Amino acid sequence: MKCRRCRAAAVIELRRHNAAFCGPCFVHYAEQQVRKAVDEFAMFSPEERILVAVSGGKDSLGLWDVLLRLGYRADGLYLGLGIGQYSDASATYARAFAASREARLVEIDLPADYGYDIPNGSLAARRAPCSACGLSKRHLFNQAAVDGGYDVVATGHNLDDEAAVLFGNVLRWNTEYLGRQLPVLPAEHGFVRKVKPLVRLDEREMAAYCVVRGIDYIVEECPMAEGNRHLGYKEALNAVEERSPGAKAAFYFEFLAKASDLFRPLAVAGHDGGLQPCVRCGSPTTGEVCAFCSLVERAVALGPTRRAAAGGS
Amino acid sequence: MKCRRCRAAAVIELRRHNAAFCGPCFVHYAEQQVRKAVDEFAMFSPEERILVAVSGGKDSLGLWDVLLRLGYRADGLYLGLGIGQYSDASATYARAFAASREARLVEIDLPADYGYDIPNGSLAARRAPCSACGLSKRHLFNQAAVDGGYDVVATGHNLDDEAAVLFGNVLRWNTEYLGRQLPVLPAEHGFVRKVKPLVRLDEREMAAYCVVRGIDYIVEECPMAEGNRHLGYKEALNAVEERSPGAKAAFYFEFLAKASDLFRPLAVAGHDGGLQPCVRCGSPTTGEVCAFCSLVERAVALGPTRRAAAGGS
Repeated sequence: MKCRRCRAAAVIELRRHNAAFCGPCFVHYAEQQVRKAVDEFAMFSPEERILVAVSGGKDSLGLWDVLLRLGYRADGLYLGLGIGQYSDASATYARAFAASREARLVEIDLPADYGYDIPNGSLAARRAPCSACGLSKRHLFNQAAVDGGYDVVATGHNLDDEAAVLFGNVLRWNTEYLGRQLPVLPAEHGFVRKVKPLVRLDEREMAAYCVVRGIDYIVEECPMAEGNRHLGYKEALNAVEERSPGAKAAFYFEFLAKASDLFRPLAVAGHDGGLQPCVRCGSPTTGEVCAFCSLVERAVALGPTRRAAAGGS
Repeated sequence: MKCRRCRAAAVIELRRHNAAFCGPCFVHYAEQQVRKAVDEFAMFSPEERILVAVSGGKDSLGLWDVLLRLGYRADGLYLGLGIGQYSDASATYARAFAASREARLVEIDLPADYGYDIPNGSLAARRAPCSACGLSKRHLFNQAAVDGGYDVVATGHNLDDEAAVLFGNVLRWNTEYLGRQLPVLPAEHGFVRKVKPLVRLDEREMAAYCVVRGIDYIVEECPMAEGNRHLGYKEALNAVEERSPGAKAAFYFEFLAKASDLFRPLAVAGHDGGLQPCVRCGSPTTGEVCAFCSLVERAVALGPTRRAAAGGS
């Protein structure tokens, strides 16, 4: 198998593109895919300051690496979630990457800075761990971007992630979410712009990118996400992709091209209208206290001791 | 495990309904599901004459059986597709069922009545076998219904079939087809009404229905459909259903409830406007000769000898 671009021996085959690449040309390919996504969806300009949400995994570190190579002004934000050994290890990878690139890594630690962690936040708020985690991330990434004067928050959601979320929303026809599933969410009402520059690259490609680029990342999945529905959706889509290479990309991009607009009017009102500053943190919210501050309050009140007790019940 | 309805020993568990039934109560359940679908989507009234498209498989024979039990005026139509031993066997099952119920079975045989069969029709028209077959069925079922004075054609598409077709259309966001994927297609411009009364029952339920009712049916799948995409979509959805019982039903019925209308304006113009009678058969068509007559013409011209030659190449 030869590299499509330079005819050297290929190291990776991309069935959906009917192509194969050697290491250096694969890096070029990945950069082009990010460039194309950034341009096509007008994600950001070279002057803007980007805050990359960094988990220590292949996607976020790979994304940060590509953006730096393409010359963008990209800093990282690492959020310590307090998920035991998993969080300790992921922080190490994020810091090592930042140090190797002499890049700026902002750090926020839930236990140290806010007095809770995802396991007890989940219990306290009676939300699934992935829900408590998502809520915390959305709030804190946005707050850090606002505080740090960033124009945009970039996350490492790849094609598999977006296709799986789309599949989940389509399976239940969550029209309100379908109307907001876009690679760019514009800034509005105190929320900075959010972008997903990896939508044109899949999981395997991001892993390969990190390997070729020599980026060490945490390989294990978050232990709290095990067995969640999202992973089931990925498996189902992978089975379809295996039979029809390109099916996953078509599913996501044809949605954007042909169906997304139909659902737009049904989208969650998002952050339109009726917003006021949270009395605790000042973030825009529809209530008096925002969902994040409410979660923190309950988690802190629950305390770490209840967590052990609840875990043993 | 006990029957939900009568507390006798259950013979089938229905996870998505969190229920189990004994044989007689399962038959009652299946009838209720058909009754509910017929009523909810206003498929037909007790006075109307129904032509059931019968293949000899579990779905079409089960459907015919339920309709007769519910007192509907339902005749059967069997189409001999000329797919070797498979067609011979399926005809035997269809005839045996009709004889046992003293029900009327109309028969059309592609080789004897039209001079072609699905294998050479597929070659001649350069269509996949399932495409040539679908085209032939649509035309001939409709023609037979018109000729016989039937009000409606009923097909045995079950929940798995409809969910798989929906999944296939969603995977490519075929908006024109999504706008027409309904359990009832009203009569228009020379086409009779088409209904799918089994949309509330899945494959396993239809197989169980036939077993409990003692209906012999052809178990093997059509040999020409092997490995087609549709079967892949069913497998993917089954994997999702396995994790989340009810996911498949929600996918289909939430589509009808929440999304179908959005796609309606984008539907294939269907049979609206610009239609004229086919110069060969008189069926409404947008061209001079309808797609069916064109298929037959090419298949007959190709002749059976070419088929053997092509099969050996």
